[in-house]
Amino acid sequence: MALDNSWFTEVHGKDGSAFSLKVTAKLLDEKTPYQHLEIYDTEDWGKLMVLDGCVMLTSRDNFFYHDMLAQPAMCWHPNPENVVIIGGGDCGSLREVLRHDGVKNAVQIEIDKAVTRAAEQYFPELCERNNDPRATLAFIDGVAWMKEQPDTSVDVMLIDSTDPVGAAEALFGPEFLQDVFRVLKPGGILAQQSESLFYHLPLVTGLRSTLLDAGFADCKTLPFPQAVYPSGWWSVTLARKDEKFGAIRECGLECEYYSKAVHQAAQVLPPFAAKVLKQ
Amino acid sequence: MALDNSWFTEVHGKDGSAFSLKVTAKLLDEKTPYQHLEIYDTEDWGKLMVLDGCVMLTSRDNFFYHDMLAQPAMCWHPNPENVVIIGGGDCGSLREVLRHDGVKNAVQIEIDKAVTRAAEQYFPELCERNNDPRATLAFIDGVAWMKEQPDTSVDVMLIDSTDPVGAAEALFGPEFLQDVFRVLKPGGILAQQSESLFYHLPLVTGLRSTLLDAGFADCKTLPFPQAVYPSGWWSVTLARKDEKFGAIRECGLECEYYSKAVHQAAQVLPPFAAKVLKQ
Repeated sequence: MALDNSWFTEVHGKDGSAFSLKVTAKLLDEKTPYQHLEIYDTEDWGKLMVLDGCVMLTSRDNFFYHDMLAQPAMCWHPNPENVVIIGGGDCGSLREVLRHDGVKNAVQIEIDKAVTRAAEQYFPELCERNNDPRATLAFIDGVAWMKEQPDTSVDVMLIDSTDPVGAAEALFGPEFLQDVFRVLKPGGILAQQSESLFYHLPLVTGLRSTLLDAGFADCKTLPFPQAVYPSGWWSVTLARKDEKFGAIRECGLECEYYSKAVHQAAQVLPPFAAKVLKQ
Repeated sequence: MALDNSWFTEVHGKDGSAFSLKVTAKLLDEKTPYQHLEIYDTEDWGKLMVLDGCVMLTSRDNFFYHDMLAQPAMCWHPNPENVVIIGGGDCGSLREVLRHDGVKNAVQIEIDKAVTRAAEQYFPELCERNNDPRATLAFIDGVAWMKEQPDTSVDVMLIDSTDPVGAAEALFGPEFLQDVFRVLKPGGILAQQSESLFYHLPLVTGLRSTLLDAGFADCKTLPFPQAVYPSGWWSVTLARKDEKFGAIRECGLECEYYSKAVHQAAQVLPPFAAKVLKQ
């Protein structure tokens, strides 16, 4: 059957697949200085945010992504006090970080203010910690910002970006990741969204090489389900400065997708990926 | 954007989502006595089999499903000699079972001969063990067949069915599953495809209750990625007669998705599912 325009469809061209959500209304259609931002209401997924034609998140299933981008890094670090999020304009990662009482400050560096304004309006549950006194929201370029940061000043860095094309491509490149390495404290942890192990394994391989070349001592890729992203299976890649990943802290948080056991189990990759990534 | 008819689309109506594959040709369109069978060639997925409008498998990604339907049951059983597959007409599960040298006979009970004939033509790699002297292929109704089997005669039973609507609904019901219980030997293991933990959690809950009510001593649901199935995340539910699941055997098989470590890790469910399923 053909799908009409009552569906929002994202085509994954290189993989010959497409994913669609039934939409009931378009709530926002804005050309920001950086990208094309759309918000839809859907039949079964709550609100849907789209950037440049790609699904960013829905109310219904963003917990998979936000749990896995933020919590493995936060719970692997023995005492994360200073946290930086690059991208993450929907503020869901910031919310997850600020659930940790030990955090002293969390800085979100999102280039596009319009994304956060839209999140505040359409995804208020993700923005509920935006006024936490420990939070700083800045709307500037993450690559430029990183260059200016002092050495060894950050415990955990989350790279919560769009796909590595266009503006976000630099966030996967050696120059930026060397800067991240410099800015992290010893034992500091980076977590970066790293696409699909099924559709984009060469990209993950390349990212891990770049991280190890930048000097990181250890690297782990954790896959997780994400229905609305290409292949329905997404991943986060973590890297640690100076030390191997150690014990997972018991953080005492109740999450929908993340738990200490899930964190442990997610390190096991299926043979087709484990062989290539040597994990 | 709208998708035209160069895409095969399956709509997941209750969940307001749809998944599409770019097709290049329709190779078969047959109304069998049981269902509507279509085979397509695709741009990036090899061949695609569709039954009654639902994606059954593609050349590219069926290894996720076949590994996880067959290998956890085969490797959890200490010595599986007599194996039965109900459904599974594409013969991929049969192939996985017969990779185990200890198997003495494997019986595939598929109601629709046309599915297997199509698999032999379009998915020959899945049918490469069909002529193994240990294999028996019968094209009869699995529910009726099961009623006639002697007590305690089978080590491992795989229920490799379509969705639990129409013909396959009975395979999820108490009458059939009590029969399966009766036919399994002590320590015998059932593995059943059990839909998505994200879209169909109530169905999984119901299946597990039915299995425990039928007398099974232990029950485990293992999720795995499957891009072409609704939500991109699928599951197999296993149940064991008379005994709890024990150690996983080192089977010495090289699989693309399955490994002993993957088997162990897949038992860890995310909190939102673990709470409901009590696993």
